[in-house]
Amino acid sequence: MATPVVTTRILRRLLSSGANARAERLLARIHPADLGPLLADLTREEIRTVIDLLFKHRRAATMLKELPPELLPQVFEAVTDQRLAELLNRVEIDDMLELVAGIPEERRDAVQALLPSDRRAELRHAELYPPSSAGRVMTTSYIALDEKMTAQEAIDSIRASGDLGESILYLYVTDESRRLQGVVPIRRLVASPPDRPCSDLMIQDPLNVQPEADQEEVAQLVARYDLLAIPVTDVDGTMLGVITVDDVIDVITEEATEDMYHLAGLSEEDRVFTSARVSIRKRLPWMIVNLGATFTAAWIVGLFERTIEQMVALAAFLPVVAGMGGNGGIQTLTVITRAIALGEIEFSSGVRAVAKELGVGLVLGATVGVMSAVVTYLWQGNPTLGAVVFLSMVSTMAVASFLGAATPLILKALRQDPALGAGVIVTFLTDAFGFFTFLGIATLLMDRLL
Amino acid sequence: MATPVVTTRILRRLLSSGANARAERLLARIHPADLGPLLADLTREEIRTVIDLLFKHRRAATMLKELPPELLPQVFEAVTDQRLAELLNRVEIDDMLELVAGIPEERRDAVQALLPSDRRAELRHAELYPPSSAGRVMTTSYIALDEKMTAQEAIDSIRASGDLGESILYLYVTDESRRLQGVVPIRRLVASPPDRPCSDLMIQDPLNVQPEADQEEVAQLVARYDLLAIPVTDVDGTMLGVITVDDVIDVITEEATEDMYHLAGLSEEDRVFTSARVSIRKRLPWMIVNLGATFTAAWIVGLFERTIEQMVALAAFLPVVAGMGGNGGIQTLTVITRAIALGEIEFSSGVRAVAKELGVGLVLGATVGVMSAVVTYLWQGNPTLGAVVFLSMVSTMAVASFLGAATPLILKALRQDPALGAGVIVTFLTDAFGFFTFLGIATLLMDRLL
Repeated sequence: MATPVVTTRILRRLLSSGANARAERLLARIHPADLGPLLADLTREEIRTVIDLLFKHRRAATMLKELPPELLPQVFEAVTDQRLAELLNRVEIDDMLELVAGIPEERRDAVQALLPSDRRAELRHAELYPPSSAGRVMTTSYIALDEKMTAQEAIDSIRASGDLGESILYLYVTDESRRLQGVVPIRRLVASPPDRPCSDLMIQDPLNVQPEADQEEVAQLVARYDLLAIPVTDVDGTMLGVITVDDVIDVITEEATEDMYHLAGLSEEDRVFTSARVSIRKRLPWMIVNLGATFTAAWIVGLFERTIEQMVALAAFLPVVAGMGGNGGIQTLTVITRAIALGEIEFSSGVRAVAKELGVGLVLGATVGVMSAVVTYLWQGNPTLGAVVFLSMVSTMAVASFLGAATPLILKALRQDPALGAGVIVTFLTDAFGFFTFLGIATLLMDRLL
Repeated sequence: MATPVVTTRILRRLLSSGANARAERLLARIHPADLGPLLADLTREEIRTVIDLLFKHRRAATMLKELPPELLPQVFEAVTDQRLAELLNRVEIDDMLELVAGIPEERRDAVQALLPSDRRAELRHAELYPPSSAGRVMTTSYIALDEKMTAQEAIDSIRASGDLGESILYLYVTDESRRLQGVVPIRRLVASPPDRPCSDLMIQDPLNVQPEADQEEVAQLVARYDLLAIPVTDVDGTMLGVITVDDVIDVITEEATEDMYHLAGLSEEDRVFTSARVSIRKRLPWMIVNLGATFTAAWIVGLFERTIEQMVALAAFLPVVAGMGGNGGIQTLTVITRAIALGEIEFSSGVRAVAKELGVGLVLGATVGVMSAVVTYLWQGNPTLGAVVFLSMVSTMAVASFLGAATPLILKALRQDPALGAGVIVTFLTDAFGFFTFLGIATLLMDRLL
């Protein structure tokens, strides 16, 4: 495969010299998934020409749905409403949903009005499912079989489905009211005698999900049972659609990004290729929250101004207490958040996990507390200061571990995202507790410290 | 599906009352992937009984390979060398590699000696591939076709492959020296006339990887091009094996965990259900590194003891500077690390990404810097102190963003894990710079501050 960088350079040269026929041939050889890196480096005018060229090949729709969402605004700017509606009309419903979300709000109605009425209805229906639910990632094109059909008849229906056949891995046996009866893996179909009825071949009562299910839970099921697709049914068992493994991979990647981002107080739209303006706008609110938290911590330190005045050396230990506590809290937070995301917290109940982390925090705190006390004594020659550092280190690390474990579990119990805001909460509470404990103990022992 | 908790309770009751026949029937109905949560709650004695029961059904091997690696030691303790070798002999080579890694070192040789010599050779060969490489996750069982075979003959070979057929999605056309010529998706085979030769059906020159390729890069390819499997070939194009999409999902999940863990200074073996002892042992080294970093930051603060003595209020602002800088650094670090993991950094070159983050850091720093200055002035009634806070905030945030962006890129250029240690490095350097700048500027402006 040509590397995208090389291709971009060639493509730009062809476009600028008006060699559109050659640019067209180059584009025809590019895999849809490789278009993203290419478009990212083109001007708006060049993007318009590329879309025009892709249109000729009826490849624009396939290309579009592979683009990272962050690039969509640039592409949409270069395309008329009419053309955009034509593109939308050619993709499956889950891709359409995602693309529509990328259209600037002021154009969205106009573009949707240009869709055929049946597709508009389909879109409106899909938009009723909650965000990040199974209903939004499922495709509604699948092959349904009758249980009395033979293997050969099933194979014939795959042949008749044409293009669709390329993406088929399972066939779904339904009754006359479209209720799901079973699943026939295409591999099993192939290996079966042609006259065998589908009712003999199918896996009965297959695993299925409802459209309201969270996409992360669906992804966990698919990953856990090594499935290639999972059917979506309503409460009556009526077949609604299918979620395929490639969509599941996207969900897993997206959810992992979300967790990492939320732990750091970032929003998902803030990516490496997002404009600086957008990144600033997205990060500022959390920065301000964090500013409030750090000033509150500063206020706590300020309460002990008299103590610090009596012994200025104490100020140097503030970063030690905060740094160690913060680190311990974030470690625990990461372990628990990841366990929740992977559905592992069922292995041990939440309470057991919190107890374990508290124990780990106490032992680690005691260990690094002793080391800190020794270093402090060697540095400042003051054994009481060493004791103060030890005591505040043990208690801060224990509190940090407890908060790091409990916060995401509490957020989850409140049906919030376990990672969102947890980093700021844990760091702030740990810092506040650490400063209060360290300076508080120092105040109590001031007679011995001096 | 019965929830694992309920099943555990029933299973324990059956085992303790000696109702092994009923326990056996219960186990027969459990999906291999659901065994993990079950075993986690059993005693060693109970695990031994369960393994014995599974053995009767020849299901123990299938169950074993689905277990999370953290549970393996407990299970292995309950099984003799002989039985363990029998289990290993029944799984595919990628699963065998993973299971062998879980056997305590002192037993490993003894168990391997009990394997049939051909499998022992296969294992030794696979162990030559680097850790986390394609060669270690590929399976060596796949169906190879000759290009002159017809669609019907290909279908017959699937039938002949028996059990294997269940996991087949693509068939591989090879020449007489086993060099990969093309790939026939099973769906295409089904839809084709029976007498069509495979050479007409196959996708020529399919995407393939070499066994030394990093598993993360392989996963990116499969995810990007929506593949269900990717062939592994050596430099001559000789077919060695296949990596299937279920293994790719495991790799993606594992690599995401690794990145999140490395950012927090955790090791992968430290999970929610790991024993507290192991968690402590795994976390302690990074804790000590972090302790060194925080004491160095403390030492920098200590250099300015005279300054703090002159104006004790300065101490309260240390958490503000460190907290804001640390937060900014970790945000940038998270964005860049994730972009590297998803192979997105090619979208914009690394240099451009660093420049963007530096700009974002400057603007954010200036914005929160102004807010901090105002709050400081209102709190302390000292405009010069506000100016000191502003100046150190802007410069620290800019440096934090630069370090957060540059550190993972530099680590990657040095062929290190971009996330490993990056959190500690960025936080430490940001804190050190922040304290030095804040207290340094305060020292210079001390005349106006007082």
